[in-house]
Amino acid sequence: MNLISKTPIVILNFKTYLESTGKNALELAKACEKVAKETGVNIAVAPQPMDLYQLSQEVDIPVMAQHIDPVTAGGHTGSILLECAKEAGATGTLINHSEKRMKLADIDEIVKRSAAEKMISVVCTNNIEISAAVASLGPDFVAVEPPELIGSGIPVSQAEPEVVEGTVAAVQKINPSIKVLCGAGISTGDDMKAALELGSEGVLLASGIILAKSPEKALLDLVSKI
Amino acid sequence: MNLISKTPIVILNFKTYLESTGKNALELAKACEKVAKETGVNIAVAPQPMDLYQLSQEVDIPVMAQHIDPVTAGGHTGSILLECAKEAGATGTLINHSEKRMKLADIDEIVKRSAAEKMISVVCTNNIEISAAVASLGPDFVAVEPPELIGSGIPVSQAEPEVVEGTVAAVQKINPSIKVLCGAGISTGDDMKAALELGSEGVLLASGIILAKSPEKALLDLVSKI
Amino acid sequence: MNLISKTPIVILNFKTYLESTGKNALELAKACEKVAKETGVNIAVAPQPMDLYQLSQEVDIPVMAQHIDPVTAGGHTGSILLECAKEAGATGTLINHSEKRMKLADIDEIVKRSAAEKMISVVCTNNIEISAAVASLGPDFVAVEPPELIGSGIPVSQAEPEVVEGTVAAVQKINPSIKVLCGAGISTGDDMKAALELGSEGVLLASGIILAKSPEKALLDLVSKI
Amino acid sequence: MNLISKTPIVILNFKTYLESTGKNALELAKACEKVAKETGVNIAVAPQPMDLYQLSQEVDIPVMAQHIDPVTAGGHTGSILLECAKEAGATGTLINHSEKRMKLADIDEIVKRSAAEKMISVVCTNNIEISAAVASLGPDFVAVEPPELIGSGIPVSQAEPEVVEGTVAAVQKINPSIKVLCGAGISTGDDMKAALELGSEGVLLASGIILAKSPEKALLDLVSKI
Repeated sequence: MNLISKTPIVILNFKTYLESTGKNALELAKACEKVAKETGVNIAVAPQPMDLYQLSQEVDIPVMAQHIDPVTAGGHTGSILLECAKEAGATGTLINHSEKRMKLADIDEIVKRSAAEKMISVVCTNNIEISAAVASLGPDFVAVEPPELIGSGIPVSQAEPEVVEGTVAAVQKINPSIKVLCGAGISTGDDMKAALELGSEGVLLASGIILAKSPEKALLDLVSKI
Repeated sequence: MNLISKTPIVILNFKTYLESTGKNALELAKACEKVAKETGVNIAVAPQPMDLYQLSQEVDIPVMAQHIDPVTAGGHTGSILLECAKEAGATGTLINHSEKRMKLADIDEIVKRSAAEKMISVVCTNNIEISAAVASLGPDFVAVEPPELIGSGIPVSQAEPEVVEGTVAAVQKINPSIKVLCGAGISTGDDMKAALELGSEGVLLASGIILAKSPEKALLDLVSKI
Repeated sequence: MNLISKTPIVILNFKTYLESTGKNALELAKACEKVAKETGVNIAVAPQPMDLYQLSQEVDIPVMAQHIDPVTAGGHTGSILLECAKEAGATGTLINHSEKRMKLADIDEIVKRSAAEKMISVVCTNNIEISAAVASLGPDFVAVEPPELIGSGIPVSQAEPEVVEGTVAAVQKINPSIKVLCGAGISTGDDMKAALELGSEGVLLASGIILAKSPEKALLDLVSKI
Repeated sequence: MNLISKTPIVILNFKTYLESTGKNALELAKACEKVAKETGVNIAVAPQPMDLYQLSQEVDIPVMAQHIDPVTAGGHTGSILLECAKEAGATGTLINHSEKRMKLADIDEIVKRSAAEKMISVVCTNNIEISAAVASLGPDFVAVEPPELIGSGIPVSQAEPEVVEGTVAAVQKINPSIKVLCGAGISTGDDMKAALELGSEGVLLASGIILAKSPEKALLDLVSKI
């Protein structure tokens, strides 16, 4: 059921908004599940660490970690252990989100350990060169997000289409089995349609849905033109 | 019921051991609950972030966060938000554990925000001077752990009793309402008894219990001489 | 000659402005030296790491490091070693500047090692509680700078005099031998006069002088009402 | 004269050894200069930040930074600014050394800014995948160092020749203009010869020379079989 890699895919990053914390997180995940079932579009949610277990128990769509720390089992108080994320229900993880940039060696480690544990890896990047670099590490997805557009309301698929197209081309050249997502400023059906037409296989988004008056309606609009 | 500040107290830090992850975490927390009820000693557990919600639902002893990130609600993907920890059931938090050292300004921020949210703050320190420094920030507890003894099996209450006594004296001088805990190498009833006789009001411990053949028996021994 | 602890003292933090880099750094240090000699006021400069050696060779006023990394001799490529700073001519160091916040345990380490090497330690803080905390670590100076006023042009000595007075009182209570400096928004003779009247023994400043049309004139004005 | 990119090249990383601090750093750099002149082999030195200016004044071989911080001019107290490094005499910089791992986005930034300032960029990596990743960022050199061999005395060119060959192949495939160096455990002429035969164009090394009884003799041996 949790065919997280089925595309086109929408990944909703809950970030640390109060609107997507605790009970609100559960309600939002339920809305995602409802829209996914009604429309057949694959929608995954990436809640905060302490909300992940509950959501994975309560909804039947893929639940992902927002981040995994580069630590192994043992003495790492306060860190997020990959094995713990998996057992709590994470079917994949964001890696190197622009709000949680990681060291290159640590990205490599988490991509490899995700693969070993059959968890989907989605590495976030900020430009074409970095996307190409990440492709050499072999993740399942590369999600390119020009940092200046994140949370701006200006969709990357319209403001910087060449970044999406260039990323698709660069990643394909290195490793054709890696899928490209795009993010930053995405919120409407037109944004998503444009993103797919540029060669991406889905979107990574947050505030455009989370802070909408009705996240459910916003999601329905988002996937309406696929 | 969750009178987390009742002393003497035992805080069991689950760290990131596989023996205290997921189902193992739940089993361990149940053992802690059983011993707490049988003996009347206050035992709190500090599980990994993604295990916290489940444990707070399943056991009736205080559940604490291992760490809270110095971020406020909004765009902080991958971080542990205080409000999310509270809603997930955390009644307090460790701060500045030796495996997750924090910047001074961030310790101050989390202590203040914990107080505002009525969560208990336990700031870890590594010597007398730092314990005195932390006392000026006004947490509920200071937990002193000489770093060279952590995980060593050599109990601080016997190897460096002067650190515990000196911390109690230094903290009392700055702010008599702050309670002192001690940790590092603690595992037996004699260790705990010695810790209390030195003026501390409890212990913070991990591997001595978590990695024991029977954590329940180890806990019973730990609190047997109080 | 390098009586860095003589007060009142002005510490000019060169930060990483191009106006205080390389040749500009040398010119600025010469202006500080000139004003110090003309007025008798103790003026110390804290240049960027790679400018420190040259300045310590060329001027006869105290030269301080902006930061020392918490590493010991050995394998720490890219770090700033205390012993190297000292041999390069640093007579003291800023610690925990608001632009380079440090972990509590690391502040403690650098304060102690500075004392052992007879280097003056100036620990930056952001409020009264943190200033009191730092006083327990025993540095030579505590420099309080409300972060919201840094680079604002609004002088702390006028906007938040209670922070300066409160810091002086709190630090004195913990350890009367520690001197208090204040910073943030300081640039004129009136600002400095007010700072001293509030009980501080000097100021820590940067942009108000560095970015002035004539840093020399700005410095002369700064010390004109002492 | 400072044709830093002439190969074969030896880059001597001074790390933070006391044996390569201050006066010792100068003496060591002089030895490198002497051997470079006698043998015609390109030898570059990477001293600690506070020693860089003096060395660039005193020796006529390339002097490199060990690290540059991802900051721009302005308010970044304690950071190492690229423009300051350049003006102090750095003709290039190590990036992402195993002892100073950087975030992927920051590596990209420093590689691009180094190129803009005509400084040579040497990005350190730890395996073939990461080397390939870095090649997409377009630095001048990739220096591969298996972390388990660093400081071990076991030369990478003999213990893990496949890592060197694999890195050369992977980097060439992405961008043939990028040169590969190797490091970890290198200290003798045989090690260096083997490194070149595997396709690398030089070595990055430290303790094998710095801690030798006579660094000059060790250097002479190192380059004796080229």
